[in-house]
Amino acid sequence: MSDMKEKVLQALKENTQEYVSGEALSELMGVSRTAVWKYISELKKEGYVIESSPKKGYRIMPVYDMLNEYEIRWGLKTKIIGRDIRYFNEIDSTNNYAKKIAYEGCDEGTVVVADCQTAGRGRLGRAWDSAGGKGIWMSVVLKPSIAPENVQIITLAASVAVARAIAGTCGIRTGIKWPNDIVLDGKKVCGILTEMNSEMERVNFLVLGIGINVNHEEGDFPDEIKDRATSLKCYADSGREASKKEGHGSVFPRSQIIGRILLELEEMYSKINKGFTDEIIDEWRSYSATLGRKVKITGRDGEYEGTAKDVTRDGKLVVDCTDGITREVVSGEVSVRGLMGYV
Amino acid sequence: MSDMKEKVLQALKENTQEYVSGEALSELMGVSRTAVWKYISELKKEGYVIESSPKKGYRIMPVYDMLNEYEIRWGLKTKIIGRDIRYFNEIDSTNNYAKKIAYEGCDEGTVVVADCQTAGRGRLGRAWDSAGGKGIWMSVVLKPSIAPENVQIITLAASVAVARAIAGTCGIRTGIKWPNDIVLDGKKVCGILTEMNSEMERVNFLVLGIGINVNHEEGDFPDEIKDRATSLKCYADSGREASKKEGHGSVFPRSQIIGRILLELEEMYSKINKGFTDEIIDEWRSYSATLGRKVKITGRDGEYEGTAKDVTRDGKLVVDCTDGITREVVSGEVSVRGLMGYV
Repeated sequence: MSDMKEKVLQALKENTQEYVSGEALSELMGVSRTAVWKYISELKKEGYVIESSPKKGYRIMPVYDMLNEYEIRWGLKTKIIGRDIRYFNEIDSTNNYAKKIAYEGCDEGTVVVADCQTAGRGRLGRAWDSAGGKGIWMSVVLKPSIAPENVQIITLAASVAVARAIAGTCGIRTGIKWPNDIVLDGKKVCGILTEMNSEMERVNFLVLGIGINVNHEEGDFPDEIKDRATSLKCYADSGREASKKEGHGSVFPRSQIIGRILLELEEMYSKINKGFTDEIIDEWRSYSATLGRKVKITGRDGEYEGTAKDVTRDGKLVVDCTDGITREVVSGEVSVRGLMGYV
Repeated sequence: MSDMKEKVLQALKENTQEYVSGEALSELMGVSRTAVWKYISELKKEGYVIESSPKKGYRIMPVYDMLNEYEIRWGLKTKIIGRDIRYFNEIDSTNNYAKKIAYEGCDEGTVVVADCQTAGRGRLGRAWDSAGGKGIWMSVVLKPSIAPENVQIITLAASVAVARAIAGTCGIRTGIKWPNDIVLDGKKVCGILTEMNSEMERVNFLVLGIGINVNHEEGDFPDEIKDRATSLKCYADSGREASKKEGHGSVFPRSQIIGRILLELEEMYSKINKGFTDEIIDEWRSYSATLGRKVKITGRDGEYEGTAKDVTRDGKLVVDCTDGITREVVSGEVSVRGLMGYV
């Protein structure tokens, strides 16, 4: 968004209760009233609803789910994460773009957000449906001063940050499936893909890819994943049959959720850098939808079943296996009974 | 090198005992004798010594250290590593280039070689002097099917491959400082920098950067590193005072050493993929210039001294520390008493 257009938008958003006259705007900006009118037209094209009255001027109406760079930055309280935001209406994959700019040397805390991904990916190269207008598809570039073998704590911290942000902005309490899937009603609502560029002793950069199904309707999910995937809206609507009859049910403001995720992530990241990782693990445990449950682990060296007992200080999953051995799981496919279609 | 020029070169190299007539070459290639003459001129410009006789034709003379793509490929027996070789007279850093093409999706086994690096790097971002005409500066792209936490075995295997290749082509027995520096007379002769692009569960690609001081004279090393760095040539010359008086001492053929490294690396890599990692660790132990020695470890959580006792199956260094604790070292700075200036 151009600086001038952003200034117009800001003036309007700071005065939602009254009309702002074209003259006032033109004086504020130091441009002609025709120029002001041009910026207003552009804002309308981007989806903003702006009432105009020849006598009173312009007034912006609330639009609940407006996703763009400006809306994400609006009210953002972070210092590092989000100081550079790259917004795209459409992109192949925010993680691909983030890796590219990280490789070229972008600042730590750079955030890539897209309304639509044409080639979104989940873990292990799996496709991740990320159509436009409904989800949060974002990537955050971090340059943590930790050894590669300790990166797991960041992926766990990211899931706690997302869970906190969803609770704080949508009032929905989610669960976390180890290591960092966010679940609701036993279905996946958010996945986090951590990609890393490292040497043996240090991490050069890390890209946290966060995908959240926000305003999807039930019909948006293909039949084959309906029993494993849901959205914040589906979940909220299912508990609001009454309100649903009147309107469209809940629509959640993605820019606001993103802003909150960045804030929570920055707090988590600061804890990690200070070495307060135990606090993060404790909070992860409080969200856990994994501990105490039956799990199946499919690793490179075979398949094990057992009960998830705990997570270690560095984020490994401790499983009491049915063969009598207690294993610490670092990576691999973990199915949790009752979650995402595993029965 | 163009295909045609390479054909001329091949015909000459296959007949080093006799002259090859311009007519024979022109027939073989299906081009005019003038064209043949043009290719010969180009080869001479690249450093090949080719005698020409108006009556007998052309004859190639042995040039001991000729580094280019063709010479590396000549006689190369590998199947995967080196099927794509990118040679540069000069480049910023072979690792940077390798990471770039790996990110863009190059084949596994692609090898990047440069005669000179203008911005060569060692571990932890340290500068690595890599002037032209004397060293081996190369990077190999691998896509191993292992979890990120198991990558250490590949870096150890790479050092064994280099030690084998140096022994096989130069007749010099080197030692390995954990995890993968190659030493001679207590000085560093080769460093290996492993960089990795990974997700939590899998490695997307790995770049093995291998830098070897081959034909450097003692005067090539700046004073401040003279007691810590050496070259294969310096080492060989130091034991050959007699021959030195007559000529230049040893000059080692870099292309041939590279070919041998690729071959040994492919064998190591095949062992890793088959799970025969214990064999690699055993062989690493046989080259070790670390086990049984006093070491100092500088990690993120402090400094420890002790005696290097063993390496684990996954490549960690086991150290009996002076505080009575036995530690397994994954990463960090390790100084070995007697090596590279640590006394």
